[in-house]
Amino acid sequence: MAAAKRKLANGKDFIDFQTDPSRYRHWRLSVAGEVATLAMDVDENAGLFEGYQLKLNSYDLGVDIELADALMRLRFEHPNVKVVLLRSAKDRVFCAGANIRMLAGSEHAHKVNFCKFTNETRNAMEDASEHSGQRFITVVNGTAAGGGYELALATDRIIMIDDGSTAVSLPEVPLLAVLPGTGGLTRVVDKRMVRRDHADFFCTIEEGIKGKRAVQWRLIDELVSPTKLEDRVKAVAAETAAKSPRRAAAKGVTLTALDRKFRSDGADYGHVRLDIDGAQRIATITIRAPEAGAPATAEHMVGQGDRFWPLQSARELDDAILHLRNNAFEVGTIIFKTEGDPAIVRGYDEFLEAQREHWLAHEILHYWKRVLKRVDVTSRTLVAVVEPGSCFVGTLAELVFAADRSYMLLGQMQGDNRPAPRLVLTAGNFGAYPMSHGLSRLQSRFLADPEKTGALKREIGRALDAEEAEELGLVTFALDDIDWANELRVFVEERTSFSPDALTGMEANLRFAGPETMESKIFARLTAWQNWIFQRPNAVGDDGALARYGTGLRPAYDMRRV
Amino acid sequence: MAAAKRKLANGKDFIDFQTDPSRYRHWRLSVAGEVATLAMDVDENAGLFEGYQLKLNSYDLGVDIELADALMRLRFEHPNVKVVLLRSAKDRVFCAGANIRMLAGSEHAHKVNFCKFTNETRNAMEDASEHSGQRFITVVNGTAAGGGYELALATDRIIMIDDGSTAVSLPEVPLLAVLPGTGGLTRVVDKRMVRRDHADFFCTIEEGIKGKRAVQWRLIDELVSPTKLEDRVKAVAAETAAKSPRRAAAKGVTLTALDRKFRSDGADYGHVRLDIDGAQRIATITIRAPEAGAPATAEHMVGQGDRFWPLQSARELDDAILHLRNNAFEVGTIIFKTEGDPAIVRGYDEFLEAQREHWLAHEILHYWKRVLKRVDVTSRTLVAVVEPGSCFVGTLAELVFAADRSYMLLGQMQGDNRPAPRLVLTAGNFGAYPMSHGLSRLQSRFLADPEKTGALKREIGRALDAEEAEELGLVTFALDDIDWANELRVFVEERTSFSPDALTGMEANLRFAGPETMESKIFARLTAWQNWIFQRPNAVGDDGALARYGTGLRPAYDMRRV
Repeated sequence: MAAAKRKLANGKDFIDFQTDPSRYRHWRLSVAGEVATLAMDVDENAGLFEGYQLKLNSYDLGVDIELADALMRLRFEHPNVKVVLLRSAKDRVFCAGANIRMLAGSEHAHKVNFCKFTNETRNAMEDASEHSGQRFITVVNGTAAGGGYELALATDRIIMIDDGSTAVSLPEVPLLAVLPGTGGLTRVVDKRMVRRDHADFFCTIEEGIKGKRAVQWRLIDELVSPTKLEDRVKAVAAETAAKSPRRAAAKGVTLTALDRKFRSDGADYGHVRLDIDGAQRIATITIRAPEAGAPATAEHMVGQGDRFWPLQSARELDDAILHLRNNAFEVGTIIFKTEGDPAIVRGYDEFLEAQREHWLAHEILHYWKRVLKRVDVTSRTLVAVVEPGSCFVGTLAELVFAADRSYMLLGQMQGDNRPAPRLVLTAGNFGAYPMSHGLSRLQSRFLADPEKTGALKREIGRALDAEEAEELGLVTFALDDIDWANELRVFVEERTSFSPDALTGMEANLRFAGPETMESKIFARLTAWQNWIFQRPNAVGDDGALARYGTGLRPAYDMRRV
Repeated sequence: MAAAKRKLANGKDFIDFQTDPSRYRHWRLSVAGEVATLAMDVDENAGLFEGYQLKLNSYDLGVDIELADALMRLRFEHPNVKVVLLRSAKDRVFCAGANIRMLAGSEHAHKVNFCKFTNETRNAMEDASEHSGQRFITVVNGTAAGGGYELALATDRIIMIDDGSTAVSLPEVPLLAVLPGTGGLTRVVDKRMVRRDHADFFCTIEEGIKGKRAVQWRLIDELVSPTKLEDRVKAVAAETAAKSPRRAAAKGVTLTALDRKFRSDGADYGHVRLDIDGAQRIATITIRAPEAGAPATAEHMVGQGDRFWPLQSARELDDAILHLRNNAFEVGTIIFKTEGDPAIVRGYDEFLEAQREHWLAHEILHYWKRVLKRVDVTSRTLVAVVEPGSCFVGTLAELVFAADRSYMLLGQMQGDNRPAPRLVLTAGNFGAYPMSHGLSRLQSRFLADPEKTGALKREIGRALDAEEAEELGLVTFALDDIDWANELRVFVEERTSFSPDALTGMEANLRFAGPETMESKIFARLTAWQNWIFQRPNAVGDDGALARYGTGLRPAYDMRRV
């Protein structure tokens, strides 16, 4: 296999998902009133790994980490922005897509997790548009190839320069023997609803499609002559801003650097602790409730800024998950725990529910939704352990419902004064956090009995002990303290003895009972096929297309169809 | 890789999908009034390939070919059957699932196509129940493991013997490092709506689940003590038959052996010709209209039996597709052509539409639906070539809409007297043949404009020339005879130069725009993940689980999560 393990650039020893605009190497975010411009200007010498240059606005995970950061800041720091112009700062090239040398030299697990993150980032753009009225408009000023066009596909409107040469393309299949892996195939037929035979043609020509045909086939929205481009972009931006339902807020909340310290066996955040047991291949993520209760008013929440517990804990959890996904492939199981006063957590949930029309509460609820979706598609076994002293309440209880399994202790532990665990439902469990396939975790859990989710609303606020929680179907197993340690040990040992691949496939199928949406199709149909192809010699072998790209040699394919 | 190419048993040189009950080695089909019994009694020495024994009612593709044949005969030859009891003829074992030695020794392409066919066969059971009122009841009299339990999952009701030891299980993940590949994961959570955490537990324990828990968790429908089993089965069968909406017909239509002759470069059937161009890796399937028009009455149709053109041509097309899929991996492109009088084909379509309440017409329409679905999930590039002398009308026009692309000639070919091609829509294009995701091919094609499908109904019966067909969006390209040969040549050459894997993944994503159903999820999410896993060393490597199964050695896994 050509996919040797790459070395991170600049002597780094892990991939850091935290950044801020002052450190961006690849993007420029500027805001002018209601319109922001997100300009892609990839520094070809600032790749995340050694061994390749990011030419022609091609990207790697490092470029996407900055984009994801910018999208977060647009929602939290710039609540007044209604339109984001996604542009290239380079002449005659919009974006050449994922860097091929990077892909060719990446190990399988990196390729897969790179695509997962870029998909989540594209989804975050659509989420901002749908739920926060931040509309995205792409201005294609030159080649938009592969991942470049996929970036455009994630926006609301694609304006292309009519210069006789600029085209959009998905050349992955003919050129690289892989799929467009960031939602391209799905969005072409499901979002832009390009006719499938046109899509077939489009996805098999390296040079892509330009001019009027690109509009006629629905690949782009409009074509504008070079001299009129800037005026037209301005006009469309103004029009779009006028139509956005977004209500401006006076001022945003600054996302400061996370309070985070890495240890050899994990990391400590303000409210989150990550512990990695390398020998057992388990990571435990513990989320702690704050000491102080929810603020009295929305103004107080704004005043707390990014130290407001629901926002801070979501950012910390998000970072911990991303860290595990991309830097700790050896971890097979993630155990979720919580610590603290359930009443305080419930207070925060009730506060957010009461304030959900307030722009910041709204953004925080949607951010939690995205973090929980990230948990759902994390290919590790997810377990919730509901112990004495825990606070799985409302939003945090979603982790119990997101888990592949959950264990809850009946009563207290001998010699432990902490109160017996209680599970508490809040309004947040009934629609605030839909999964990617559109159902809430409770709806998906109780598919067999759709009435049940409604009936559970009557339990909102009640402190459910393990027996009740098991009876209501909210946890998998309620165990007494005699069995507790042993059962958990056996489960974890058993789990970590199975093939990680089989577990990944099994979990990806069992977690999403019920319907599929465009978003879930991207993670299911498209991603699963891409994972297969990322493993096939035709793509990744020594004579495969990725290794031979740019060498002048044609790839050698095994021509048998599977 | 452990997956060397297996040798077919008994000196056979291809896999034959044609059989009949007199040749069954593994199943016994018996009919008593409204109740049929399909008894699995696998002959362990009659495997399809050399090198393994089919112990404990385990199965290979050969076993499934007989099952598929029996299902066809139940619908056509036994229209009076309302209930099918799916049972084992062996003591204390129902079915041990797909044979592991067979899987371990199969090449990747065989594994994938084996699973595809078994999935289609399970779907055919559900199709018979839903659309023809032939209900299936499984009687689990002993171990139902893996594919054995998946067989039960495809039926309407699962009755299990309560003997203290019989269990249902999906032990693939813990035992074999692969997924249950015949719809099991999807049907557990989507059809039987087992709670996802229960499903997680169930799919990770080798021994499976027995007794009351199996009922409580919805894995089976009922548990019956050994002494009461036969009476209970009789009672349930009678009850179920009484509730079936199926109206008995006096007598069925016998499915005689296909009129089929293989050549070195293809095969000749009565109405279908298969031509394989090995050098270009293209197969052309030509379907010919009959000389004689549709019969005058339903009685005449019944009188023609399996020589009735729509039934005969569907069987022949089905066999040709299956032959290509399983015996000709080197073929990358399938070209569909038709020959004959469009008026005659239209007459048959109109006849079927007029007679669609007649049991035989009903069965034929549903059989065409299944054959077309089989085309949809065939992982070869599908092209429809609409030439002079062709008859792409109604049902046959579905092949144009199923194709990844279609080419239609403008006018006639120089020096060719045959009439310019015409495309004709019939009522059959508007709902008779839904795809696996629930939409008609026209609905899926015109997702961008849902009104369009309705508007196209006004064109029913009109002979559309190439210009009109292209204008209406029914064909991809209309070409004149100057460009025709060249354009087709370039397309085919280009197509056959691409990586077959990338094409498979691309086509699987572009063909199914729109919603997903349980059936389409099985072919998308589940199958795609399984294909990936079937490629991973943890499953198929020399030290992987499939190779090491039964050796006493534990498999050696790469423990990194992807």
